[in-house]
Amino acid sequence: MQIKIFTTGGTIDKIYFDKLSEFQVGEPQVGEVLREANVSFEFQVEAILHKDSLDLSQADRQFILEKVLADPHRHILITHGTDTMIETALLLRGLPEKVIVLTGSMSPARFRNTDAVFNIGCAVAAVQLLGEGVYIAINGRVFKPDRLRKNRETLQFEEY
Amino acid sequence: MQIKIFTTGGTIDKIYFDKLSEFQVGEPQVGEVLREANVSFEFQVEAILHKDSLDLSQADRQFILEKVLADPHRHILITHGTDTMIETALLLRGLPEKVIVLTGSMSPARFRNTDAVFNIGCAVAAVQLLGEGVYIAINGRVFKPDRLRKNRETLQFEEY
Amino acid sequence: MQIKIFTTGGTIDKIYFDKLSEFQVGEPQVGEVLREANVSFEFQVEAILHKDSLDLSQADRQFILEKVLADPHRHILITHGTDTMIETALLLRGLPEKVIVLTGSMSPARFRNTDAVFNIGCAVAAVQLLGEGVYIAINGRVFKPDRLRKNRETLQFEEY
Amino acid sequence: MQIKIFTTGGTIDKIYFDKLSEFQVGEPQVGEVLREANVSFEFQVEAILHKDSLDLSQADRQFILEKVLADPHRHILITHGTDTMIETALLLRGLPEKVIVLTGSMSPARFRNTDAVFNIGCAVAAVQLLGEGVYIAINGRVFKPDRLRKNRETLQFEEY
Repeated sequence: MQIKIFTTGGTIDKIYFDKLSEFQVGEPQVGEVLREANVSFEFQVEAILHKDSLDLSQADRQFILEKVLADPHRHILITHGTDTMIETALLLRGLPEKVIVLTGSMSPARFRNTDAVFNIGCAVAAVQLLGEGVYIAINGRVFKPDRLRKNRETLQFEEY
Repeated sequence: MQIKIFTTGGTIDKIYFDKLSEFQVGEPQVGEVLREANVSFEFQVEAILHKDSLDLSQADRQFILEKVLADPHRHILITHGTDTMIETALLLRGLPEKVIVLTGSMSPARFRNTDAVFNIGCAVAAVQLLGEGVYIAINGRVFKPDRLRKNRETLQFEEY
Repeated sequence: MQIKIFTTGGTIDKIYFDKLSEFQVGEPQVGEVLREANVSFEFQVEAILHKDSLDLSQADRQFILEKVLADPHRHILITHGTDTMIETALLLRGLPEKVIVLTGSMSPARFRNTDAVFNIGCAVAAVQLLGEGVYIAINGRVFKPDRLRKNRETLQFEEY
Repeated sequence: MQIKIFTTGGTIDKIYFDKLSEFQVGEPQVGEVLREANVSFEFQVEAILHKDSLDLSQADRQFILEKVLADPHRHILITHGTDTMIETALLLRGLPEKVIVLTGSMSPARFRNTDAVFNIGCAVAAVQLLGEGVYIAINGRVFKPDRLRKNRETLQFEEY
């Protein structure tokens, strides 16, 4: 079993905003997190976008969908900005033979204090345990994207 | 749903060995890891042992079993030294209405570079997704304790 | 002896650029660094600016000078963006009875991997050991600001 | 100018105590700290002892003295356990053409929260700014070893 990981940007991979360049999202950190955790499964990381999720267009989300559809892996993990993670997840519903888990973080993985590593841990367990479908792993929970929203004060996702 | 967390010691909670005291295992770190991850579920941490798992006696493991049996929670997470985690897990098989996940780490949670946070993340997702039974979350995988062993060279658990 | 610390912004205090706000420079980290280091001297932190140093105007630098002139402490530490730290330092030359050390960092203090803590350590020792004048502590060195420049490739300051 | 660094052990380089081995003090961390800080001076690290400083014998301290005497560098930094750092420093007084700074830390350099990096920063600045003699850089201060003691409650060094 090999897990395919698509990275799309988001806070999880952010570096500080450097005035001398427009670049905000750096190299994906998920591979390094998995190596440091000494994981014993195989995985493949593919960076398909480097955007803050507030900047994702419908075309970008369609692009994510196409990458997932074209990929042969059953187990798919997507790191994504948390602001519009639900929108992307809703678009990935109903794909046969795919177990798709989206995760991200409120603090960059590069930070000393961060939720990134914990969230990736949750997502990795979730993508191996769940059946077909798309899910969001965040705040230590695993959610279906339907009737889900991000509470910007508590920085927690909640069902409604 | 509230997750009950029993901590028993192990490397995950180790502090450096201080010559002026025999104390090796410090205050449990799991609560702090969950708070830093901004988890949205309720949890309760109870430190029942503070031992390196090579020091656990059969009486200690029996004590862990009794604490689990006496606890009303369905979802139980146990942090434990990785060296004899399998032995304790085998003793916790067949308990009705309990979803028990054991985890630990090869590097202390207090370390800058550690697998502790990732492993706790995996275990937290696992204990919410799995059915009754006892499992071990480690190296990014979720195992049944039967026919499982720890490979001391790779520091990875493997089925045989 | 009490050290007065003026914080002016810079990468050392940067948080990731959040799309929902313009804010880039967060709360100064130097106080927390000193507390974590268990320093035994007294210090006072005053945040007077929160700018990337490429955004500092001549009026801003004049403002820094005025704050230093008006302050009664002999030992002054200033955290500052590294890009124009030399310009500010040059303006602070020749102030009687003041030992002024500027420092900053290439990576934010909030990062897991950073030069911020080390640089603050250097600056703290320097401000206590040097005589009157203004200095820059960076890359493990202590420089006079004259004939000094920042090499943007190596991210090191060098005399010329 | 090249700084010579002798490492002798101590908490600064401690790893957790592993039951399957007696080894407590791991590979010296100072080189990595300096590289992460992007220092622009040359340095040479030589590990001459790997002991908790409570375990240092008079012969060990004599050995440290001999290594320093035999070394051609003027600028010498020694990382050392804080418990008996003063004893070793007292033995290193009066060496001509040597600027010797001892430092260590109360928490290992490998820890997420540590004073090690800050202390090394102080020591590095001190060894470049001071004149001949031996000093201790700790708690953000630079001390002569005479009439100095470690307060075990506050974990701070104080003159008496």
